[in-house]
Amino acid sequence: MSIRFVFDFISPYAYVGWHRVKHIAAAHGRSISTEPVLFAGLLDAHGQLGPAEIPAKRRFVFKDALRKAHRAGLKLAPPPRHPFNPLGALRVVHLLEGHARTQAIDACFAAVWGGGGGVDTPEGLIAALDGAGLDGAALLARTREPAIKQGLRAATEAAVAEGVFGVPTFIVDGELFWGTDSLVDLEGWLRGEDPVPADLDRLWLELPAGARRPGGQRGQRSAAKG
Amino acid sequence: MSIRFVFDFISPYAYVGWHRVKHIAAAHGRSISTEPVLFAGLLDAHGQLGPAEIPAKRRFVFKDALRKAHRAGLKLAPPPRHPFNPLGALRVVHLLEGHARTQAIDACFAAVWGGGGGVDTPEGLIAALDGAGLDGAALLARTREPAIKQGLRAATEAAVAEGVFGVPTFIVDGELFWGTDSLVDLEGWLRGEDPVPADLDRLWLELPAGARRPGGQRGQRSAAKG
Repeated sequence: MSIRFVFDFISPYAYVGWHRVKHIAAAHGRSISTEPVLFAGLLDAHGQLGPAEIPAKRRFVFKDALRKAHRAGLKLAPPPRHPFNPLGALRVVHLLEGHARTQAIDACFAAVWGGGGGVDTPEGLIAALDGAGLDGAALLARTREPAIKQGLRAATEAAVAEGVFGVPTFIVDGELFWGTDSLVDLEGWLRGEDPVPADLDRLWLELPAGARRPGGQRGQRSAAKG
Repeated sequence: MSIRFVFDFISPYAYVGWHRVKHIAAAHGRSISTEPVLFAGLLDAHGQLGPAEIPAKRRFVFKDALRKAHRAGLKLAPPPRHPFNPLGALRVVHLLEGHARTQAIDACFAAVWGGGGGVDTPEGLIAALDGAGLDGAALLARTREPAIKQGLRAATEAAVAEGVFGVPTFIVDGELFWGTDSLVDLEGWLRGEDPVPADLDRLWLELPAGARRPGGQRGQRSAAKG
């Protein structure tokens, strides 16, 4: 069964994760299926802030992502702008299939986190796609089709419904692994060595609450609105 | 210079981090200084939700913490209640010094995440402290002193001012490492092998924003209120 890679180009961790999951899939004889989603849509649905929206966390995240990239033997450079609007690039990936889709993902990640010119302007996105041998202008034109826009929105909603709350998320055999730090656990899973007992969900999720933070309600209201 | 361990008993990752940082400090000839803070206070200050306040993330976090504990050779059991009020235990640690403080931390973590009876009832906290050879009842009485309450509050505010946004946070030579996943980077730092260039903060934090998520403003308003 495939390893599902749920991602948004906005995340440097998704860039590192894309690089690493290719190696892991190859080592374990699994294929990868790619699932672009809008991270901002996940945040809205869960009433959560993104790491780059909290100044103190934003500062750590950039360093942390650089360290993870370095460990993976991957160059990570700041994009021209951040945060930025990744919708065009995500829609292009969404409408492609097969090898062209993989090429578009490689090209867009390189344009954002590999020292390129970004994918949040028409010129940048077209240049990235053209550089991968795709027809950037034609693909960009297709991202304006209502069915493509709606397709990406539906994919994001489906991810939320499945329990995805962040990117990158790796899903294998129905089990969710969030973030590149969990790839070591995904590998354990693939080797059949996951230590989590089958009844853990029941035991832990049904724990009684002894206290609730008043501020913790805000997110739930927001989530209900989203 | 010490490795500073900033923590709250509410976090299973702090439990794993406490175990691991002891080994790391010993291996690198560093001491540990312990800094209890109220995680809920950090969340309020940053306008952020905790992982256990987002149902989908809560489900992942318990599994993830169990996997990390397993890798560290540590038993991790669900506490009697979660979330729970950790204030009494944090205040006890705050008022202690030296060896007694370390003993209290060991005892409280064991009571929460090591299969004990929790620290969020007077009986549970006293039993945990008594079991470590401390005078639980006397210590609990002292947690009602305004100076102790204010001391923990001030420690939490100081952590926020220093850029701490989560627990556990490890601080060495003024550099913040968040979460047990960053301990590998802390070890790199201690070996003098951190790959982050000195001007990264300047380069990355001054990136222009190309887009802002409307929902991302909510947190900032909350933070201003907190």
